[in-house]
Amino acid sequence: MTRFSYDAAVRWSDLDAYGHVNNARFLTLYEEARVAMFFTGARAQGLTSFEAGIVISRHEVDYLRPVDYGEAVRIELWISELRAASFTVSYELFDEDVLASRAKSVCVPFNLAEQFPRRLTDAERDFLKPYLEG
Amino acid sequence: MTRFSYDAAVRWSDLDAYGHVNNARFLTLYEEARVAMFFTGARAQGLTSFEAGIVISRHEVDYLRPVDYGEAVRIELWISELRAASFTVSYELFDEDVLASRAKSVCVPFNLAEQFPRRLTDAERDFLKPYLEG
Amino acid sequence: MTRFSYDAAVRWSDLDAYGHVNNARFLTLYEEARVAMFFTGARAQGLTSFEAGIVISRHEVDYLRPVDYGEAVRIELWISELRAASFTVSYELFDEDVLASRAKSVCVPFNLAEQFPRRLTDAERDFLKPYLEG
Amino acid sequence: MTRFSYDAAVRWSDLDAYGHVNNARFLTLYEEARVAMFFTGARAQGLTSFEAGIVISRHEVDYLRPVDYGEAVRIELWISELRAASFTVSYELFDEDVLASRAKSVCVPFNLAEQFPRRLTDAERDFLKPYLEG
Repeated sequence: MTRFSYDAAVRWSDLDAYGHVNNARFLTLYEEARVAMFFTGARAQGLTSFEAGIVISRHEVDYLRPVDYGEAVRIELWISELRAASFTVSYELFDEDVLASRAKSVCVPFNLAEQFPRRLTDAERDFLKPYLEG
Repeated sequence: MTRFSYDAAVRWSDLDAYGHVNNARFLTLYEEARVAMFFTGARAQGLTSFEAGIVISRHEVDYLRPVDYGEAVRIELWISELRAASFTVSYELFDEDVLASRAKSVCVPFNLAEQFPRRLTDAERDFLKPYLEG
Repeated sequence: MTRFSYDAAVRWSDLDAYGHVNNARFLTLYEEARVAMFFTGARAQGLTSFEAGIVISRHEVDYLRPVDYGEAVRIELWISELRAASFTVSYELFDEDVLASRAKSVCVPFNLAEQFPRRLTDAERDFLKPYLEG
Repeated sequence: MTRFSYDAAVRWSDLDAYGHVNNARFLTLYEEARVAMFFTGARAQGLTSFEAGIVISRHEVDYLRPVDYGEAVRIELWISELRAASFTVSYELFDEDVLASRAKSVCVPFNLAEQFPRRLTDAERDFLKPYLEG
C-alpha cells in the first residue's frame, strides 16, 4: 500500500484564542490534503470525476496533541475501505514527525448535476487501489 | 432531559466553491453552540471552569443534507455520556426544522496552566446533569 | 439618506490568538452585511443582477477599538459614491453602540460569464439611490 | 531597500462560492506574510517585541485580478513609511509572477498588557530600516 503525503502549511490565523491550531481547523487541513489527492493528484492522471462530485457523509477526528504555529504539518492519506458506492479516506497528521491527530472521512461519489449518489467508476477504483489498506 | 438550543447564523463566507456550507465549517457551527452552552451559559450560572479548560479529544460528524446560505440553523445539544474525567456532547443541526447533520464531541476537562487532564468537579457535574440523556 | 443596518453575530472562532476578533475577519463581517444588502435585500425587490456579479476592486478598513466575543455587532451601510461603472459602499461597525471600525469597498458591476466590467443598470441605480450620501 | 518575500500556500478553502480566492481572505494571506516577517523573522534576530504587540490601525487592499486555487502566491513586503509611533507595511501579491493585488497596513506598536500605544524602540527601527522604501 502507498500513502499519499501532503505538507500543509499552518497559518497563524489557524490559531484560536487558546493559541493552538483550532480543533475545527484540523478538518480544513485534512480537506487540503484530500483535495490535493483527489482533485490535483487524480487530474494529473486524467481523472476529473472526483472533482465533479464527492460528497462527504461522515468525518471522525481524534486529537492526540495540540499543534502550534510553526512548520508545516505532514498529512498522510490512504484508503481504508473501498465499497461499490463509497470509500473511506484515513489520515494521520504529523507535527515534526510526531503523530498529532488521526481522522477518517466517508466519501460518496455523487452526481452533483442530478443530485444523486452514484457507484465508483472503474477509473476511480483503479486510482484508489494502490492506496488501499491491507 | 433538557436540550440546549442555539441558533447559529449561516454566513455567506461559510459557503465553499460548491455553493453549500463547507463540511469542515459545520464543526465551527457546532463549536459556536458548544461555546454558548459551556462558556456563556455556564458563566451565567457562575461556572467558569469549562472556559479555563476543555480539550476536545474527538469529533464525529454525520452529514445528512447540504445546508445553503439563508436563515440561521438551529443546533440542539445534550450530554450523551458523563464519565469521571470526560463527557460527550451530542448535537443535531436543523435547517428549517429538517435534520441536516448530527455530531458528537468527546470533551476532556483540562488544567491548561499545568497541562494535564483532570476530573470533572461537582459544580461541573451539576451543570451537566440536566442535559444528560437517558 | 437611508442606511442599511445589519446585525452580525460575532463567533468565538473569529477570535485570534490575542483573544480579540481578528482584524482580517472584520472584512468577513462587512462582507456579510454587504451580501445581506446586495443579494438578499436586492432580491427581495426583484433585483438579482448584483448577485450575478459584483467584483470588489478595493477595500479600506480603519480599526478604532478591539471587538471581543459577545453580542452581535451592528453594521450600517450606505453608498458614498455612485459612478457609471462603479460605486462605493461605506460602513460603520458598532459594538454595543460604540463605533469600533469604519470601512469602504469600491464595487464594480461585472459580467462574470464574459469577464468584463459593465455599467450599472437603471434598476441597480434605483436600488442604490435611497442609500446615497449627501 | 530589501523586500521580505513570503510564499503563501493557497487553500481550496480560501475559495468562495464564486470559485476564486475570497477577497476578505487576501487579508489573511497578507497577515501570514506579515507574521512571518515580524514574528518569525524578527525573532530570528532576537527581537520579540513586535509579537508582544502590534495593533493594526488601517488596511487598504486593491484587487487587480482574481486568484484561483493552485500554486502558492508570492507576497513581497516592505516598509513604506516609518514614524515615531507607527509604520506602514506595503505589500504586493504575485500569482505566477503576475501582480494580482496590492495592500498597505498601518501598524501601531502597542503595550498589550497596559493597553496603550507606544513609540518604536531603537531595536525595532533597526529591524525595519533595511526594508524602508526610498
